[in-house]
Amino acid sequence: MRDLQPLVRPKSVAVIGASSNPRKSGGVLFSSLVDGKFSGQLYPVNPGAKEVLGKTAYPSISDVPQKIDLAFIALPRDAVLSAVDECGRAGCRAACIIAAGFSEIGEFGQADQLELKELADRHGILLVGPNTIGVIDAHTSMMGSFIRYPRWEKGGISLFSQSGIFNGAVMLEWMNQDVQRPGVMTSVAAGNKVDVDEIDFLNFAEADPETTVIGMYLESIGNPRSFLKRLSEVRERKPVVVLKSGRTAEGARASASHTGSMMSDDTLLNAGFRQFGIARADDEKEFMDALRTLEMMPHPKGKNIAIATTSGALGVMSTDALVAEGLQLAQFGDETIAKLQDVLPPFIPPANPFDFWISVDLKGAKIAHEQSLEPILADPGVDAVIAILLAPAGADFDEFGALLRRLKSTYGKPFVVVIYGDDTGKKWLKELEGAKIPVFGSTRSAVRALSLAIRATC
Amino acid sequence: MRDLQPLVRPKSVAVIGASSNPRKSGGVLFSSLVDGKFSGQLYPVNPGAKEVLGKTAYPSISDVPQKIDLAFIALPRDAVLSAVDECGRAGCRAACIIAAGFSEIGEFGQADQLELKELADRHGILLVGPNTIGVIDAHTSMMGSFIRYPRWEKGGISLFSQSGIFNGAVMLEWMNQDVQRPGVMTSVAAGNKVDVDEIDFLNFAEADPETTVIGMYLESIGNPRSFLKRLSEVRERKPVVVLKSGRTAEGARASASHTGSMMSDDTLLNAGFRQFGIARADDEKEFMDALRTLEMMPHPKGKNIAIATTSGALGVMSTDALVAEGLQLAQFGDETIAKLQDVLPPFIPPANPFDFWISVDLKGAKIAHEQSLEPILADPGVDAVIAILLAPAGADFDEFGALLRRLKSTYGKPFVVVIYGDDTGKKWLKELEGAKIPVFGSTRSAVRALSLAIRATC
Repeated sequence: MRDLQPLVRPKSVAVIGASSNPRKSGGVLFSSLVDGKFSGQLYPVNPGAKEVLGKTAYPSISDVPQKIDLAFIALPRDAVLSAVDECGRAGCRAACIIAAGFSEIGEFGQADQLELKELADRHGILLVGPNTIGVIDAHTSMMGSFIRYPRWEKGGISLFSQSGIFNGAVMLEWMNQDVQRPGVMTSVAAGNKVDVDEIDFLNFAEADPETTVIGMYLESIGNPRSFLKRLSEVRERKPVVVLKSGRTAEGARASASHTGSMMSDDTLLNAGFRQFGIARADDEKEFMDALRTLEMMPHPKGKNIAIATTSGALGVMSTDALVAEGLQLAQFGDETIAKLQDVLPPFIPPANPFDFWISVDLKGAKIAHEQSLEPILADPGVDAVIAILLAPAGADFDEFGALLRRLKSTYGKPFVVVIYGDDTGKKWLKELEGAKIPVFGSTRSAVRALSLAIRATC
Repeated sequence: MRDLQPLVRPKSVAVIGASSNPRKSGGVLFSSLVDGKFSGQLYPVNPGAKEVLGKTAYPSISDVPQKIDLAFIALPRDAVLSAVDECGRAGCRAACIIAAGFSEIGEFGQADQLELKELADRHGILLVGPNTIGVIDAHTSMMGSFIRYPRWEKGGISLFSQSGIFNGAVMLEWMNQDVQRPGVMTSVAAGNKVDVDEIDFLNFAEADPETTVIGMYLESIGNPRSFLKRLSEVRERKPVVVLKSGRTAEGARASASHTGSMMSDDTLLNAGFRQFGIARADDEKEFMDALRTLEMMPHPKGKNIAIATTSGALGVMSTDALVAEGLQLAQFGDETIAKLQDVLPPFIPPANPFDFWISVDLKGAKIAHEQSLEPILADPGVDAVIAILLAPAGADFDEFGALLRRLKSTYGKPFVVVIYGDDTGKKWLKELEGAKIPVFGSTRSAVRALSLAIRATC
């Protein structure tokens, strides 16, 4: 089992090709590491510079006065092979190769990529890339990426992707929200995945005390049997969500020219995922939504779902969606039903989905929301709740956010929220800032997130 | 064929139960009509008031000194039957019943709803509801709804729903965006659908010169055979997107207690939709996204899709999604390939999906985006384009919005955009204000919207 610490949690980092030119990837990457306040030693390597951003520069990696855990290689593709060889000879323990132009471009690049792999094996150096944006880690404050995330929220999600920029898209989506930022610990963008692979990462993430949720985007799987076996072991300890693209022949061809990955039989793979109970997301949004839900909320303990809604139609649609996912509508207990009847006219019997728009009219918005959501969350037969809340002005009430926070801390059960609203909806969202309560843009995405979270934990 | 003009485009409207109390539905509804500046005559009916919001009030509908096209009945459920009877006797041509508590609550309510239907037939009055938020129409500036949309954008979408508040959710979602507001003409929220039904609405919307796109949310279909036949005729003239819930037994049960609708065989119905080439959305978001795309963009003329992306991984996922939808990757012509080669290093051959992140690095962001998107849109073999654009600071360039506007007006082809970004992404979105270029939150939603738009038009 390979130790990924030098790669993910290095004590010393060099950037080969570091420059003060913010238009070059070596420039952005180095300044990102400086600005991010990397906790270890940081060295620029550039034969043409005396210093970079105030740090003494070294002409080559072997001139750096310390053994380097991780070298970022930010050089043109044709300079990469010799740089990796030099890193190996200088005793670097890991290297991350930014440049594109390897197995994804056909035969010529494939030959070079094979040589990269040989160098990795010969020197015993961990290689990430080529064709990547880098590696980032919150524990060591290592912002080794040429896309920046100034509003990074530190937390439990660790990401691995067989892609360069994909983790960039995920982080851009997550880290630019005001209220829906999950916490991320580590992101390894493996690009063409020449060396460090999904099994290495699973081993790391399973053992890492800082990682609570694991997300993996893959275009190919080296050894499906071993991977599935490892996944089925790891999922007993930590939830894992997998996104595997190239499901269709056309998609697989596209991934060949993206990361040079080999086609795999998706039907077989999917059967394996099902057999081992692995949560497989179907697209990037589901992947992000499931990870966000798992990081923000207590983990679900079962499949009995309650729907509380101020739109009957959206309650019906959520029901269809959750049944299609293999989940079930919870049966409310007698006590719950009695309490819910209090907010409805006597001629309407409470049901699941619980449609309570009429009680907003009858009882006022605050009482309607509180006395609908609370008994449902309290019901021991309910494992998780989907709350679909319409937020026009008429549904507004003071301390919407305070209510949801209290419900989260009191009942320790997962719930996900869908809001359709005007300015009231925006106000509600804002009140949830920092509360780590996942809000979704549609009933389908809420149901899918919950379903994947359940598959990953139950 | 029934004429829905008195219902959708009335010249005179009365609100029975109009009040100056903004906490009552009759209060919100009446003030909404006043504030919306309804173009016809507007009368409050309330035996306990001399005037409401400065307008002379009448004790009963028969006292109103004009024949009324449409009466909104905003009274408690037990007062509804006699009010409808009175409307009929007073010669009203249509009535919209707000109160809930009819067929959705079981036997007791079902009996009353049957009586409503009998009254409608006896008086020849068009009935909408019960259990609804109302009817709105941009042509007559009729804001007959107790949810308000102050930022309403007038346009070509006409909506019918067998639900009350569902159209409220749709309008809240659409009318609160800065840049993604499609234009809406008419919204009939039919609630329990006691009388005016999907076929009446199809007839109206097909003939209506102001309606360019038709959206229908249904929980049951009265006469599936006739409806499918009518749909297949209407779709030759105007695109129609259908959302039918109650796909599962549990969902159908939930819809019975929502709008009292009867179960239908979803498998059979779905086969019908397929046979007649009807675009069926699977959830509310897809429904909204497809309608938005059809209203904003030129209609697609075929299934050959190009993907232009700055994330290879998202290009692979979009490929999977579009092939699964029965669409196909366009083959680029030689001229297109030659032009695209110009923005790539010589060792990378252009392909579809066209991944051009590397040219952002090589050529700068402006040239990369312009010289990637333009040849693709110009290619005669391309029917529609999905542009997946990562927007970190490094990808920013002046006049992003101007470029996209120009591409839209020059090539007259539909394209949909997915943006993952930070502040740059927000800036890009803002630059698209008013441009009617649909932006989506994920590759799947972009592909589904395009696929439904193609199904509705090709």
